[in-house]
Amino acid sequence: MTLKRKLRYGMVGGGPGAFIGAVHRRAAELDGLAELVAGAFSSDAAKSRAHGASLHLAADRAYASYEAMAAAESARPLGDRIDVVVIVTPNHLHYPAAVAFLERGFHVICDKPMTTTLADAEALCALVAEQGVVFALTHNYSGYPMVKEARALVASAALGELRKVVVEYTQGWLSTALEASGQKQADWRTDPARAGAGALGDIGSHAEQLARYVTGLEIETMLADVGTVVAGRRVDDDANLLLRFEGGVRGILHCSQIASGEENRINLRVYGSTASLEWSHEEPNSLLLRHADAPLQVLKRGNAYLSPAAQRGARLPPGHPEAFFEAFANVYGNALRTIASRVSGAEPDPADLDFPTVQDGARGVHFIQTALRSGASGATWVDARYSPPGATGA
Amino acid sequence: MTLKRKLRYGMVGGGPGAFIGAVHRRAAELDGLAELVAGAFSSDAAKSRAHGASLHLAADRAYASYEAMAAAESARPLGDRIDVVVIVTPNHLHYPAAVAFLERGFHVICDKPMTTTLADAEALCALVAEQGVVFALTHNYSGYPMVKEARALVASAALGELRKVVVEYTQGWLSTALEASGQKQADWRTDPARAGAGALGDIGSHAEQLARYVTGLEIETMLADVGTVVAGRRVDDDANLLLRFEGGVRGILHCSQIASGEENRINLRVYGSTASLEWSHEEPNSLLLRHADAPLQVLKRGNAYLSPAAQRGARLPPGHPEAFFEAFANVYGNALRTIASRVSGAEPDPADLDFPTVQDGARGVHFIQTALRSGASGATWVDARYSPPGATGA
Amino acid sequence: MTLKRKLRYGMVGGGPGAFIGAVHRRAAELDGLAELVAGAFSSDAAKSRAHGASLHLAADRAYASYEAMAAAESARPLGDRIDVVVIVTPNHLHYPAAVAFLERGFHVICDKPMTTTLADAEALCALVAEQGVVFALTHNYSGYPMVKEARALVASAALGELRKVVVEYTQGWLSTALEASGQKQADWRTDPARAGAGALGDIGSHAEQLARYVTGLEIETMLADVGTVVAGRRVDDDANLLLRFEGGVRGILHCSQIASGEENRINLRVYGSTASLEWSHEEPNSLLLRHADAPLQVLKRGNAYLSPAAQRGARLPPGHPEAFFEAFANVYGNALRTIASRVSGAEPDPADLDFPTVQDGARGVHFIQTALRSGASGATWVDARYSPPGATGA
Amino acid sequence: MTLKRKLRYGMVGGGPGAFIGAVHRRAAELDGLAELVAGAFSSDAAKSRAHGASLHLAADRAYASYEAMAAAESARPLGDRIDVVVIVTPNHLHYPAAVAFLERGFHVICDKPMTTTLADAEALCALVAEQGVVFALTHNYSGYPMVKEARALVASAALGELRKVVVEYTQGWLSTALEASGQKQADWRTDPARAGAGALGDIGSHAEQLARYVTGLEIETMLADVGTVVAGRRVDDDANLLLRFEGGVRGILHCSQIASGEENRINLRVYGSTASLEWSHEEPNSLLLRHADAPLQVLKRGNAYLSPAAQRGARLPPGHPEAFFEAFANVYGNALRTIASRVSGAEPDPADLDFPTVQDGARGVHFIQTALRSGASGATWVDARYSPPGATGA
Repeated sequence: MTLKRKLRYGMVGGGPGAFIGAVHRRAAELDGLAELVAGAFSSDAAKSRAHGASLHLAADRAYASYEAMAAAESARPLGDRIDVVVIVTPNHLHYPAAVAFLERGFHVICDKPMTTTLADAEALCALVAEQGVVFALTHNYSGYPMVKEARALVASAALGELRKVVVEYTQGWLSTALEASGQKQADWRTDPARAGAGALGDIGSHAEQLARYVTGLEIETMLADVGTVVAGRRVDDDANLLLRFEGGVRGILHCSQIASGEENRINLRVYGSTASLEWSHEEPNSLLLRHADAPLQVLKRGNAYLSPAAQRGARLPPGHPEAFFEAFANVYGNALRTIASRVSGAEPDPADLDFPTVQDGARGVHFIQTALRSGASGATWVDARYSPPGATGA
Repeated sequence: MTLKRKLRYGMVGGGPGAFIGAVHRRAAELDGLAELVAGAFSSDAAKSRAHGASLHLAADRAYASYEAMAAAESARPLGDRIDVVVIVTPNHLHYPAAVAFLERGFHVICDKPMTTTLADAEALCALVAEQGVVFALTHNYSGYPMVKEARALVASAALGELRKVVVEYTQGWLSTALEASGQKQADWRTDPARAGAGALGDIGSHAEQLARYVTGLEIETMLADVGTVVAGRRVDDDANLLLRFEGGVRGILHCSQIASGEENRINLRVYGSTASLEWSHEEPNSLLLRHADAPLQVLKRGNAYLSPAAQRGARLPPGHPEAFFEAFANVYGNALRTIASRVSGAEPDPADLDFPTVQDGARGVHFIQTALRSGASGATWVDARYSPPGATGA
Repeated sequence: MTLKRKLRYGMVGGGPGAFIGAVHRRAAELDGLAELVAGAFSSDAAKSRAHGASLHLAADRAYASYEAMAAAESARPLGDRIDVVVIVTPNHLHYPAAVAFLERGFHVICDKPMTTTLADAEALCALVAEQGVVFALTHNYSGYPMVKEARALVASAALGELRKVVVEYTQGWLSTALEASGQKQADWRTDPARAGAGALGDIGSHAEQLARYVTGLEIETMLADVGTVVAGRRVDDDANLLLRFEGGVRGILHCSQIASGEENRINLRVYGSTASLEWSHEEPNSLLLRHADAPLQVLKRGNAYLSPAAQRGARLPPGHPEAFFEAFANVYGNALRTIASRVSGAEPDPADLDFPTVQDGARGVHFIQTALRSGASGATWVDARYSPPGATGA
Repeated sequence: MTLKRKLRYGMVGGGPGAFIGAVHRRAAELDGLAELVAGAFSSDAAKSRAHGASLHLAADRAYASYEAMAAAESARPLGDRIDVVVIVTPNHLHYPAAVAFLERGFHVICDKPMTTTLADAEALCALVAEQGVVFALTHNYSGYPMVKEARALVASAALGELRKVVVEYTQGWLSTALEASGQKQADWRTDPARAGAGALGDIGSHAEQLARYVTGLEIETMLADVGTVVAGRRVDDDANLLLRFEGGVRGILHCSQIASGEENRINLRVYGSTASLEWSHEEPNSLLLRHADAPLQVLKRGNAYLSPAAQRGARLPPGHPEAFFEAFANVYGNALRTIASRVSGAEPDPADLDFPTVQDGARGVHFIQTALRSGASGATWVDARYSPPGATGA
């Protein structure tokens, strides 16, 4: 990366009350790689302007729509317009917003799930390939250093041959019909039109990506018992899946948003023929490594005994904990450094290419749709194999 | 209980090297309720005699077979013969041994799974009813005080309406083909003829009983993905199940003996509409109780705020940990006190009736068989409803 | 050990309501090494008889005093009388009861602290030497297998040169003036005449013995800030000590019985020049081992990678937890096997000699008295060196 | 706070390789409150310039000394110069750097310990009072939301009357003579001239501030056993203190940098007459609250049941962990909002005044000096009472 300045980014969505917008801004800026210069924070022009002002943006760069922003920014001189757009709207707007910017040649960083239909996801794959730009999807759990260590251990065959994967993402915040109260987050996340899916889309897709990222395995067949537990809810809020990965590796994936009292429980276990590993989001700075007939090992972030990818993801010495923002910023860091290389005409550092791509986004949407299909057919086994268009690995 | 002496028990199985025999003896004797006076420890007469001698038994009460023991003990005067037999052989011998003693009117305490076929299990149900004796099955995990607290919390509706159950029993000791080495435990536990089933019988049945004991719910349908991971193994060693309990409550049950590096991981979570609970065998003296919008509570064994059943199961004040033997002894305690009441002609204390019965044994065998059937049919949904003969609750 | 029968033991103290009596009986009998045949459970003859009957003792062996018991048992024929007496009275009676039995040549197992004065302790040392019998003190925490592993690691120099020790024993049960309510345990444990000391004697002496057992180091100087926090209490209930062990190793020892909300928190850490270890009673089956620049290791009871002493102290495979009774039974096991060897005229197995002796008892009393003396002199440094009479190691 | 722009800050110290400089920059900028515009990063002019360039500073604002920076910045027009200086040099430069900026009327944010002598600390107190500016000291552990909750619980008498405090800060990174290798951090932190003290200054002062912040209690007397364990080291690397706070509350404070294998273990326990609390840096999002005779409660960051101060310190919903940077940013947030109010001529929000002041800095230096004095006099009790000049609470 040879760029001598911060990247300039604009944000679509992320207005007042949208907690995820503030998360993306902190993640983008934590390492001093980018600065916010424009935004379409709300479809209400006054609100968007006021939010822009609170973020110290120039008044003419707080837009009332992503279309207006895409048009206006692409009309600015090269040395002044945004380099990359960050899309953090409700799910159904990811696609049109991304298209508006991709068509004008902007790089894109987009929240997940990427789209609400597979057709849209595949159209994005094609458009990204056509435009030759960078597209990053913020599956933030894969940004944790100890998740990267898990991936490195699997890749180095430290577990032997893989046998079994157990992954979960369990929450309780939708344990009641919160959407009936008008709570903003619950409102759109339980609306099929805006969210596309419920628990499977919101958190199940994180679990799937986490398992795939660490093991490197694709799901071949799956069976999903998909439920809506809270009366009147219009999307799934609890789903339990059995999986078969490549090579016959068995898996369990479960996600829930009606697990009363749970906050945000994410856990991944991978069992191999000689050892197993476990990572839990509640203690993200640790990774458990178990060998038969040897003491349990607890690997900790920041240490010199970790893999290069895990070491690279740490900003603090061992014992000073890092957490959610820092992991999110690791996804951003790799994406932004790759974009900066592209902007400055340089080759990206291969180590920076460790971030979820538009193809990962399509895989995620395919996963969600396939699970919903299995659920709708009475929780039967369905083929889950999928290869997104334009995939070239990474 | 008004008996003025210790109960006299005999043991079938549990010879040298059989760790579970020593477990049963300690459990039977921990509270001073029973004393060992006879045994058929081995089919090798010399070995049985030597083992009896090491346990300070009279030489003429160390038998070479359960048939000889049943015959000889029943020929002794009432005031001298055993009151109850404890059966701790490999699974396939539970049935004939139990029959031999039941037919002569002895009370029986038997290890699990109760039998290797459902027909045998149902025959035992009938025989127990016919003889009017006590039959207890040692599902020891339900003996833990904090498991009893979990059951009491569910029964008191402290969780609201139940929604979801996640239970697992994960081990790694059969991660390699240990049976090929001749290791005694691995040898019979992986032999279909002697064990009846693999992981599902050995540990899956514990997980099922634990979930049923705590929730009070029966499984209505299930789907089991049953695998044999280690090449050459003749029984299942990994199984992942989706469950539907009465009332539509969803469940996940998984068990494995090939999870490299795991020792003995048993975990139960029950989610209700207002709260959830979690118990883990690795910290058996604690029970986690989670309400939405309130601090997590950690309930601990021995405290006065617990239910009567949980308090009754504790021998030590809070902070002095109790563990496996003590839980096992709680199952024994209830069974032995019930037997003592029967022996002395008194009515059992209702609080003592909290132990697994012959009907629970039949339910367990039905669970194992049903899971194997689902697995054999390609992991499809099967009806799991079952009512054992002679069931009268408890 | 070649004895062909169980040892016969009698108990002094441990009547109804004395929880520690039942602990000792379970510990003595858990491994089938001994049977209770006599007792002086209460100074009230009727109570002692009733308690003996509830334990199925012969009526003539439930005595009204230890003097009567010592006299009567020593008058019985050799092949019938008790082999060993177990003393579990309030502290002030340990000495006269022990003398009564030692003078008649009985082996003794005694609860801690051994006596309420150092003179008494030293008199016991002399008497034990004179009589040539076995005297064991039940510092039960040193019976935990993972404490034995800690000791083995230190002995093998796995930590390098020792630097620092931090040990605590913290409880909250005397957080209020419980003794004013007449609660039996609080009553005698806060009575200077019967207890000798408060927190320092009851639990501080356990902490000291635990540290000494694991490190093998004696304290050379100490400073104790000894307090009585609850108004009206007649003994110490909170004490904080700075220590210097042999070789200049620094130490912190703190104990409290007024730490509201704590149950029974015992923790030992030992820091060496290359590694450190930590054991906590709340997870007694684990031992943490930390090396600089390497993953934390969690060693677990029951595994083949442990030292012989730790392996020997386990009855169950890894993952089946053992706890308080089993550790207590490990102290008993070594003492009883040593006594059995002596009774049968054989040499004790050196591995059995791993239990606290009468000299350890004197060291403990000296520790308590020295800490009280430092506290009384305004928490100043005092010489803590001590060598009990008759010490021969072990 | 009514300022319509970000505050402009300059940094003294924090050049390449100084991890703490990057920590301060992230903390200052995490919430979008301030931007870096100037720096004296190194006494080597070229290095300072290069570092400024890497941070995208204007070339003329990367200075070679704090004197040059103070002079040049104060010569810039008001609307352009820095509002506040952040001082992150080795300890001995805090004082002269702070003086240079305070004398010119700049607000100051300074790393701890504030100075290497008490005279310097008191001179700063006077100068801050004279200039009427804001001075904040970055004792970052008091920025954790759950530490703020602990403080709120104590203040609301949720623990009853305080009894005992146990606090520690334990590290292992100086377990060997790392300074001999030339490692930069070890080099200056073990140099008496640059660091002022060793473990007591570097981490002991954090422990003292944490205890004082949560309990609101000042230390009245103390005794410190201060050691230098690693041969050849020129400062203390292990210290164990007994404390007496106001009202006779007993305390233990220990800190170490030679605890092999420990990373960064910070733990605070406060015991009161009715309950106790515990916070550990290894799980900073939790706070343990123990009442006698009630389940242990685990309070978690982000929940509505927490105090206003704790809620205010959270940026993410429960279950998404926050950590070191976010706590650090909470100290910065309060200080920067207070400065912004002052810059804009408004009254500070009282809630923002929750950050360590120059008087806290003097208290910290007094604590370090007093502990060293006790240690030097053979670990004897010394008077620790102290009231810094100009204290007005806060």
